[in-house]
Amino acid sequence: MPAWLITGSSRGIGFELAKQLAANSANTVFATCRKPDAANSLNELAKSHKNVHVVALDVDDEASAAAAAETVKSALPAGAGIDYLINNAGWGVRVSFEEEEIATIAAVFNTHVLGALRVFRAFLPLLKLGTRKVVVSVSSELGSLAYVDDPRVGSAFPSYSIAKTGLNMLTRKIAKQYPDFIVFAFAPGWIKTEMGGSGAEYEVDDAVKRHIKIYETATLEKHTDKFINQFEDPVAW
Amino acid sequence: MPAWLITGSSRGIGFELAKQLAANSANTVFATCRKPDAANSLNELAKSHKNVHVVALDVDDEASAAAAAETVKSALPAGAGIDYLINNAGWGVRVSFEEEEIATIAAVFNTHVLGALRVFRAFLPLLKLGTRKVVVSVSSELGSLAYVDDPRVGSAFPSYSIAKTGLNMLTRKIAKQYPDFIVFAFAPGWIKTEMGGSGAEYEVDDAVKRHIKIYETATLEKHTDKFINQFEDPVAW
Repeated sequence: MPAWLITGSSRGIGFELAKQLAANSANTVFATCRKPDAANSLNELAKSHKNVHVVALDVDDEASAAAAAETVKSALPAGAGIDYLINNAGWGVRVSFEEEEIATIAAVFNTHVLGALRVFRAFLPLLKLGTRKVVVSVSSELGSLAYVDDPRVGSAFPSYSIAKTGLNMLTRKIAKQYPDFIVFAFAPGWIKTEMGGSGAEYEVDDAVKRHIKIYETATLEKHTDKFINQFEDPVAW
Repeated sequence: MPAWLITGSSRGIGFELAKQLAANSANTVFATCRKPDAANSLNELAKSHKNVHVVALDVDDEASAAAAAETVKSALPAGAGIDYLINNAGWGVRVSFEEEEIATIAAVFNTHVLGALRVFRAFLPLLKLGTRKVVVSVSSELGSLAYVDDPRVGSAFPSYSIAKTGLNMLTRKIAKQYPDFIVFAFAPGWIKTEMGGSGAEYEVDDAVKRHIKIYETATLEKHTDKFINQFEDPVAW
């Protein structure tokens, strides 16, 4: 009975992940989001799938992360833990370098980097009880320092790039600190979601199928402390 | 008459930089720090060197950066600019991964990354008027994603590492956005200062001599958009 904790699962790849995982009744899915009351698709999914639990979790808020961990603990059988923590919650703005505001850079950093750490810490006791101990930082090629040279990147998306490179560093620190966890940074691809836009490269259902396969088969030897994409290829830090 | 703007110059390598630059009367040195009234060594230096101007600049504060730019502009001859901007201000804490507080990570990020951007933006008009247009992000090997594998690094210094990798990403973004500026990330080395401690590898006077030589001879071709150390060797991002 693998138990999954997904942040930012009200829409986009987070929602698709919850949906596909729910289809396998062996999974227990804790699908978290900031505002469960407004998460219509997720609530519909939970209505038709008993293995889906919708849980409030605002990754910007330490108390919210702690409360979510309590809720999840209560919903699990005694002594059971979380097998997969998918730090997926994120957001971005599409503005030029010069239009990017300092406050936005701080806020994006807060969600992506500090949010991932808040959630990791809140769920650490449950992760220790889990069998798989997989922790995924959903990152992006935009967070790769090497990809800045890609003509599609350059000076664009500064807040997003800075946050994702910070998340990658955090991921490596967690991997070094907890060597028995499978911890890796993951570039899910440019996907046709609300965030990715209709001009994106990949369909969300196909991509998330690939993501799940990687999560389910990830090993300490091949994945931990790495930065990989949806095709399991390495991404340059 | 090269004009230099240094942040965090009340102590450590920032102060040594101001001191060595002051010895060359061709330089005009704007030595900035948060609290000029308490910067005794810097005030002594300015007393004996007419080419040193002590200016208040708190990089955490956008208004302070703007006011500093106004002060510097007034002190420069009409139409003159800044040739070298050395983003040196920074601080860190030495705690384990588990002791590192979320608020500290945010605060270190605020100074190192957002501080560098606040100062860059405030001084951009003066940099455009400068002849050299050199912008240095004083970073660290601790901000290199590759160096996490160094046994001396690992999970240590998470807030500092995350901030410096974010600063490196910001540096690349600035370099792409302003291709006529010489913009680079610089690892000054582990130096015997208050911050580096007495067990550090390099003497501050020797190291800063090397730093100045690199700053003065930096070129678009060889330095911009790079991460280099005090011996001009490349550092892995």
